[in-house]
Amino acid sequence: MSTVWVELGEGRYPVHLEETLGGLPAALGRAVEGRRAVLITEPRVEGLWGARVTALLAEAGWTLDKVLLPEGEAAKSVDAWWEGVGGLLAAGVDRQTAVIALGGGALGDAAGLIAATALRGLRWVQLPTTLLAMVDASVGGKTAINHPRGKNLVGAFHQPAMVFAATEVLATLPEVQRASGLAEVVKVALMLDAGLLAAVEARAGALRRGEPAALRGVVARAVALKAGIVARDPTERGVRTVLNAGHTVGHAVESISGMPHGQAVGIGLLAELRWAERAGLCTATGLSDRLEALLLALGLPVSLPPLTAKALFEGMLMDKKRSADTICLPVPTQAGEAALVRVTVSELSEFVGGLG
Amino acid sequence: MSTVWVELGEGRYPVHLEETLGGLPAALGRAVEGRRAVLITEPRVEGLWGARVTALLAEAGWTLDKVLLPEGEAAKSVDAWWEGVGGLLAAGVDRQTAVIALGGGALGDAAGLIAATALRGLRWVQLPTTLLAMVDASVGGKTAINHPRGKNLVGAFHQPAMVFAATEVLATLPEVQRASGLAEVVKVALMLDAGLLAAVEARAGALRRGEPAALRGVVARAVALKAGIVARDPTERGVRTVLNAGHTVGHAVESISGMPHGQAVGIGLLAELRWAERAGLCTATGLSDRLEALLLALGLPVSLPPLTAKALFEGMLMDKKRSADTICLPVPTQAGEAALVRVTVSELSEFVGGLG
Repeated sequence: MSTVWVELGEGRYPVHLEETLGGLPAALGRAVEGRRAVLITEPRVEGLWGARVTALLAEAGWTLDKVLLPEGEAAKSVDAWWEGVGGLLAAGVDRQTAVIALGGGALGDAAGLIAATALRGLRWVQLPTTLLAMVDASVGGKTAINHPRGKNLVGAFHQPAMVFAATEVLATLPEVQRASGLAEVVKVALMLDAGLLAAVEARAGALRRGEPAALRGVVARAVALKAGIVARDPTERGVRTVLNAGHTVGHAVESISGMPHGQAVGIGLLAELRWAERAGLCTATGLSDRLEALLLALGLPVSLPPLTAKALFEGMLMDKKRSADTICLPVPTQAGEAALVRVTVSELSEFVGGLG
Repeated sequence: MSTVWVELGEGRYPVHLEETLGGLPAALGRAVEGRRAVLITEPRVEGLWGARVTALLAEAGWTLDKVLLPEGEAAKSVDAWWEGVGGLLAAGVDRQTAVIALGGGALGDAAGLIAATALRGLRWVQLPTTLLAMVDASVGGKTAINHPRGKNLVGAFHQPAMVFAATEVLATLPEVQRASGLAEVVKVALMLDAGLLAAVEARAGALRRGEPAALRGVVARAVALKAGIVARDPTERGVRTVLNAGHTVGHAVESISGMPHGQAVGIGLLAELRWAERAGLCTATGLSDRLEALLLALGLPVSLPPLTAKALFEGMLMDKKRSADTICLPVPTQAGEAALVRVTVSELSEFVGGLG
């Protein structure tokens, strides 16, 4: 249906946004050499889409091995990573073998790091199966596993050779996960594109209900926006940090409360925006009230779980974007426009703790 | 004394070849931002050079933390890697923190992967303390740990911001390790530079005795040759495979016999050259005899340990350069010139097994 190219210094890769998985073999054949791949997925997704993907590729002459990771965040443990790498080696991969990551964001993060580190890096492609993974994880080449000290603290930048996002797979997505993905769309729109923000507001009901055409429209725009940012800053040393909006507070909320990623980011976005308004950094009147209404219309929570400032402080401390005791925080200055500001961890956590 | 620049698509980095460590702080200040670093080293090297490096950097205003890895190949276990990453996180590193790897090849490989994966990649510099690490590991950005299925099967390409090689540290290097490094010099010369090969033959005695001026001379030429190759092929998908000469048989010999890396590579080089001569690929008369004489003059072994063809076959099977059942083998066609040929694993292992 549509293809967004992510431009990088050393090349570029396509993000295909399709209605069905049918075009996968042809796209894969253009993206990687050889006809040999290892499919990395997890049991639930395998049950839903594994047979379809396997059959499509087998018909097209691909030789496929399979490596299963545990479901959810368990895929991002060091043990799962090491076993996954061992699975590739046991399958006798060589440098011409491609890795296909089929799953949501956590699966993609984990499979990506496996691909990044086996034989010092195999080519890989992403088949995101959640809205969040389509919008968030599938552009940017970030791979990671978790460390006891914090999420995503161990990883690599390893750009895929292709992303193939088919909205048909979203039909089996639970509503809470769809809402989580919509929160990421809201983030990108709020920070980068006032037009997209208005479009999401106008179609909030259809998006909340998961209407495929509405989803494809906002996914395409969000991916294109994200691709533009990543192209300018592939290893997140500059402008790309704008995509971390909501994540400083969001990660702390997520790790303390166990709330899903997107929901936590939505809450983080709102809390950080309220801080920016209080600090006089955001000049648009009532933007945080507008954001709160939109999150509610999309079925997303807006209330902070009961967290102390101290817990938030500790949750933020291990943020990768932290430099000494300050955080580089991207905040909206108005709808669709953003600035990076430095804030101390203690100032932010005290303000946010006071909101709860 | 001299600086070789390694040119890469996205930038370049210097390899400084110096007599002493004195110039380290100034060079480090030019190579990385900030004044904060974590020194990764191992107990033996720390005892020899840790205090000197720490004092030099502290005087220049650097804040240093330290992470100790186990000695030798034990640094390249998955547990050591995970503990090393944990050590960085415990020290509160951020993306402006530099990692300084002080040690030999194994330490550099392990510290490099720690730097490559902590927070998705920290800048790092290499202070090689062995001749082998100066010549081999310090140019090319290869980092790795070992897997039960084979050496260096898990890793990343992560280019350093600088390499600082001071020949004063070689004064404490055991003779067997010096010889190991000289084998790598011989490899580079044999494959790429007939002039360097003749120079090593002419100064074999001085090199064997470890005379610093002689060592600096050949290190500088070997590093420049290697830098030229790496610049053309940073991720080892083409011409760079020439640097794997001797490694196919050498890795198998090393893993089966426990012989030091350089010595095993020297034996591998000789065995692979004899195969190339037999196959009619090397047109220089008596090149393998000349290589054998040079290895002996440098104090290096030339005899294969008693290995069966079957053991060699299994040792070669997990080679990263393997594509299906064939190996892409770089062989000298004459002194200083090389070609890549495809050979089946079984043909090579049977021939080499017959040499032992």
